[in-house]
Amino acid sequence: MKLYTFFRSSASYRVRIALNLKGLSYEQAPIHLRRGGGEQLTAAYRAINPQALVPALEDDGRILTQSLAIVEYLEDKYPNPPLLPKDPADKAIIRGMALVIACEVHPIQNLRVLNYVKATFNQTDEQVNQWAQHWIDLGLAALQEMIVAQPKRGKFCFGDAPTLADICLIPQLGNARRYGCDLSKYPTILEIEKHCNALPAFANAAPEKQPDAE
Amino acid sequence: MKLYTFFRSSASYRVRIALNLKGLSYEQAPIHLRRGGGEQLTAAYRAINPQALVPALEDDGRILTQSLAIVEYLEDKYPNPPLLPKDPADKAIIRGMALVIACEVHPIQNLRVLNYVKATFNQTDEQVNQWAQHWIDLGLAALQEMIVAQPKRGKFCFGDAPTLADICLIPQLGNARRYGCDLSKYPTILEIEKHCNALPAFANAAPEKQPDAE
Repeated sequence: MKLYTFFRSSASYRVRIALNLKGLSYEQAPIHLRRGGGEQLTAAYRAINPQALVPALEDDGRILTQSLAIVEYLEDKYPNPPLLPKDPADKAIIRGMALVIACEVHPIQNLRVLNYVKATFNQTDEQVNQWAQHWIDLGLAALQEMIVAQPKRGKFCFGDAPTLADICLIPQLGNARRYGCDLSKYPTILEIEKHCNALPAFANAAPEKQPDAE
Repeated sequence: MKLYTFFRSSASYRVRIALNLKGLSYEQAPIHLRRGGGEQLTAAYRAINPQALVPALEDDGRILTQSLAIVEYLEDKYPNPPLLPKDPADKAIIRGMALVIACEVHPIQNLRVLNYVKATFNQTDEQVNQWAQHWIDLGLAALQEMIVAQPKRGKFCFGDAPTLADICLIPQLGNARRYGCDLSKYPTILEIEKHCNALPAFANAAPEKQPDAE
């Protein structure tokens, strides 16, 4: 398997965690999102992923895109250890938590949206950070409520084993810190982060551990 | 089953299509997103969904949120007719198409983001529409390329039966028209739309057919 990735891309980070949790080995093909105007925008990369986004996963000659679709693919193909429980309602709660990050937070504070906000609305870096903070705060506050409310409270977002929800949460916390969010409002989330980062699968997927890290 | 919904919410529209395709009957609990400052922001609704977003589905005493998690729940619980194929890579392609809409397009042109752009960046309605158009165009262009490139070209986004991808695409086209996008650039998508809307499951889920339509 070959992963088109960028060390600081939180969507790439999700897939790296999932690959590690499943114990799968893979080759990294780094796509630098800031160098040369963005390597993801080249014709060569667009031929791999017309969305011009990372990550993309090449496996058995197929190219798969969108990090959650890739993680679900790994779950379908390599079911152990599971990243989702069997019960449909429990599974929906976890997928819902993952989507709070993957839909309501991450895309709105993604690099291309921040660049657009900055250029089109003539915003300073500080104002761009406030935009990012606003959406991250809304999402993390809602997610923390969902975690506390669910019936299987444990060390992770849902129960005592990492799931798709943790895979989305941990990379988002890196972005939250980069944009200056006050994470002390989310003690439950910070506890979960400690438990996740104690696992090599999470620790080894961190941006600073990647071969393309700067 | 009880669906907390708003007729014009495209995320609610996705779930209505899925419920119809599965032949499931359900009760509608309308949450008006513009009336009284937004009924989704009331304490009563936040107790149901702390994200303050529609839709939410109540089933067997559980509340499920996030439209894609709800559709996957319906797929897990009522597998026929299937909305996803069995092959993991095919499934990932379809989920990837759905996520292009659900992550990269819809949240960035969602009501609360448009309101924030308008108020914080002092934009006119026309400028807000340009923001929405920009992200919708990026997404639809990428999605059309993905549809054309995939191996099972047929009447729908993937093959000859509707899937999760079509469920996300059709509601997004309503938004695209509302914000003034030129859809003639997407002939493949417009063909798929005709095939979808010829099915009662899609036609009956349309905003104007809902009991809370204005």
